[in-house]
Amino acid sequence: MREIFRQEMQQLGDDLLKQGREAARSMERATQSLKDANIALAEQVIDADKRIDALERNLDEMGISVLARQAPVAADLRTVVSVLRISSTLERMGDLARHVAYVARGRYPERVNSGPIYDLLVEMAEHATVVGQRVAQLLDTHDLSLAEMIEEEDNVLDALHHKSFSLILDESLDLSRQEIIDAVLLARYMERFGDHGVSIARRITFLVTGHIAERDETIREIAEAAEEQR
Amino acid sequence: MREIFRQEMQQLGDDLLKQGREAARSMERATQSLKDANIALAEQVIDADKRIDALERNLDEMGISVLARQAPVAADLRTVVSVLRISSTLERMGDLARHVAYVARGRYPERVNSGPIYDLLVEMAEHATVVGQRVAQLLDTHDLSLAEMIEEEDNVLDALHHKSFSLILDESLDLSRQEIIDAVLLARYMERFGDHGVSIARRITFLVTGHIAERDETIREIAEAAEEQR
Repeated sequence: MREIFRQEMQQLGDDLLKQGREAARSMERATQSLKDANIALAEQVIDADKRIDALERNLDEMGISVLARQAPVAADLRTVVSVLRISSTLERMGDLARHVAYVARGRYPERVNSGPIYDLLVEMAEHATVVGQRVAQLLDTHDLSLAEMIEEEDNVLDALHHKSFSLILDESLDLSRQEIIDAVLLARYMERFGDHGVSIARRITFLVTGHIAERDETIREIAEAAEEQR
Repeated sequence: MREIFRQEMQQLGDDLLKQGREAARSMERATQSLKDANIALAEQVIDADKRIDALERNLDEMGISVLARQAPVAADLRTVVSVLRISSTLERMGDLARHVAYVARGRYPERVNSGPIYDLLVEMAEHATVVGQRVAQLLDTHDLSLAEMIEEEDNVLDALHHKSFSLILDESLDLSRQEIIDAVLLARYMERFGDHGVSIARRITFLVTGHIAERDETIREIAEAAEEQR
């Protein structure tokens, strides 16, 4: 029973990582499709979203099945619940990458925007790509320095999002209404992508440090039990 | 033990309903703050969001505690997991109402936008308000005709969202860049609010019809057992 349980927990982790890598790759490709007006890449992002959604549904069923049959407690329970939540956040990140790809596809064969706003949007897309990559690495390694990096990238995204409004409001820049719509939406998608990355970073941090707290609690209990026996 | 379990399940349902009512009221008030450039209402929405977030955190802890101590199975397990998910969706709906309120507050003492776009945004806000109200009623009654109404309202929101782009692109309408930014964001917030309402409607529908399926399964098993005894 325990052996099966361990295998199932491993499978949940592996599938979540797979979903994280798909979401990261989608934002990478969406960014490239914006930069090169590359419609083939945009289509790949749109297709990949179906796989990301399917992975969420699988993780959902597997997670609930583990809860029902194994009734995990303490750290294992928190892990299963976190997997369900992180998976649903990754599904949203996939959606956002798809929205970016839709904009790129909608303007093809032109590039989305030009001038300083184009530069800003590409910069945001590149930071969002880094968020996606760091999230995938964090799911793989649980190295909490990655969680800090994600928070930093998100701060940069927030600042750039703020700057996007100043640029759009700068009447010295010649912008069509379509360019304004695209810039407002793309900047919002990237900013949300960063927020979702932070939400995953915080969940993993809580899981890892929660584990540490539980281990410390066990050590304390053992020490107290030893104390009583003297 | 069973008695405590029933009480805890009841408490989860009650708190979720409370959170749903708060989210519905927030969108109502956000809509009013847009219509009247009412900054006091906008501030109320911003404050209420903290309560909605706190309700989510409580539901989270209570839900995980029930999973750990009671290890529910079948329909009860699905209910607890659904409560956690619906609560996190309601939290997002509260955020979106807050974003609407921010825009209203940012333009005070002016109204956000004017002319046909103002009319469209108010129309969207009113449909979003209905979505919020139907969601709260659905959480209360589990009457699935409400779920259908939510889907219909969301279709209307999607159509209006689509129309918002045509209006913004209509160069015969005189629009400042700030007005374009506000219109793009507000229409997006309302459209997302509708999506979240649909997500809750589908979860409840699945829970209710899942229960029916399980009840039918039990009836079938009883019938078969009776058959065998003949």
